[in-house]
Amino acid sequence: MTFDHDIKATVRTIPDYPKKGILFRDITTLLADARAFRRAVDELVQPWAGLKIDKVAGIEARGFILGGAVAHQVSAGFVPIRKKGKLPHTTVRIAYSLEYGLDEMEMHADAVRPGERVILVDDLIATGGTAEGAVKLLRQIGANVIAACFIIDLPDLGGAAKLRAMEVPVRTLMAFEGH
Amino acid sequence: MTFDHDIKATVRTIPDYPKKGILFRDITTLLADARAFRRAVDELVQPWAGLKIDKVAGIEARGFILGGAVAHQVSAGFVPIRKKGKLPHTTVRIAYSLEYGLDEMEMHADAVRPGERVILVDDLIATGGTAEGAVKLLRQIGANVIAACFIIDLPDLGGAAKLRAMEVPVRTLMAFEGH
Repeated sequence: MTFDHDIKATVRTIPDYPKKGILFRDITTLLADARAFRRAVDELVQPWAGLKIDKVAGIEARGFILGGAVAHQVSAGFVPIRKKGKLPHTTVRIAYSLEYGLDEMEMHADAVRPGERVILVDDLIATGGTAEGAVKLLRQIGANVIAACFIIDLPDLGGAAKLRAMEVPVRTLMAFEGH
Repeated sequence: MTFDHDIKATVRTIPDYPKKGILFRDITTLLADARAFRRAVDELVQPWAGLKIDKVAGIEARGFILGGAVAHQVSAGFVPIRKKGKLPHTTVRIAYSLEYGLDEMEMHADAVRPGERVILVDDLIATGGTAEGAVKLLRQIGANVIAACFIIDLPDLGGAAKLRAMEVPVRTLMAFEGH
């Protein structure tokens, strides 16, 4: 594998999706490119290479794809953070802000043991409402959230800054300005 | 890593979920166990080790977790098969049977090039309605579906037999009888 592959060029931009005026950053084209996918996973966790990671938490649904690969890469367990009502056992739940209104997410209450070192993974961070909720949920059951990793940052929306203000180190691989 | 770890013992059975009389097989406890997760991924693709795999297709949502890890393991690209209305670009779509009624799933029309070698991944195969739809969708855009892999088989429900009748080699890691 060479590292001169431009992974940013593999992201597809779709204008006016899901509504007029929005430039949607589609990572399915990155994921479908074997070299770009592998490089993205390697680069995401590079700062924590060699350190012990107990769990990787992925946010439904695109965060499951990346999170599964990252967990495999660092030999950690995987923990799903899901929309409410989809997990079969006892859960903890939190409300979080969406662009319009609130929604709720859940994780299994026994998914992480107190003190375990967890990396949070999702495909993209925008306003950070989902990621902020996920960090709070992980901390609620005692997780030590050592990092949050995203392929794409939309810095103008402030999500990464919001997580850093919660003392979560943030790793992103590329940024798209404007939005 | 040792290979004497019993991955079947890491699956949690939840009685009467989602409704009375159903024994729900919960793989989140397997995924959260780093050794079991890694072994499951390794074992799933063991028959195709060393062969060229172009893409791994994962079925939303639990198939995304495993599929992401499998794609990373075999250095392939990843292709999401999603519930309708969730993919941003041009899709192909197919109806498939659920326990009650029909639903539709989609993939991007350009996600696989004709002749590419694809492994389909999901967590569990029961009646096989979803997997059968996924195979048809992949073949519709020209994929060469070389295998379908599932951690759990519920053989009494006939899904694996249904896929084999479509000439798709099926790999499962464990079976639960009855149901």
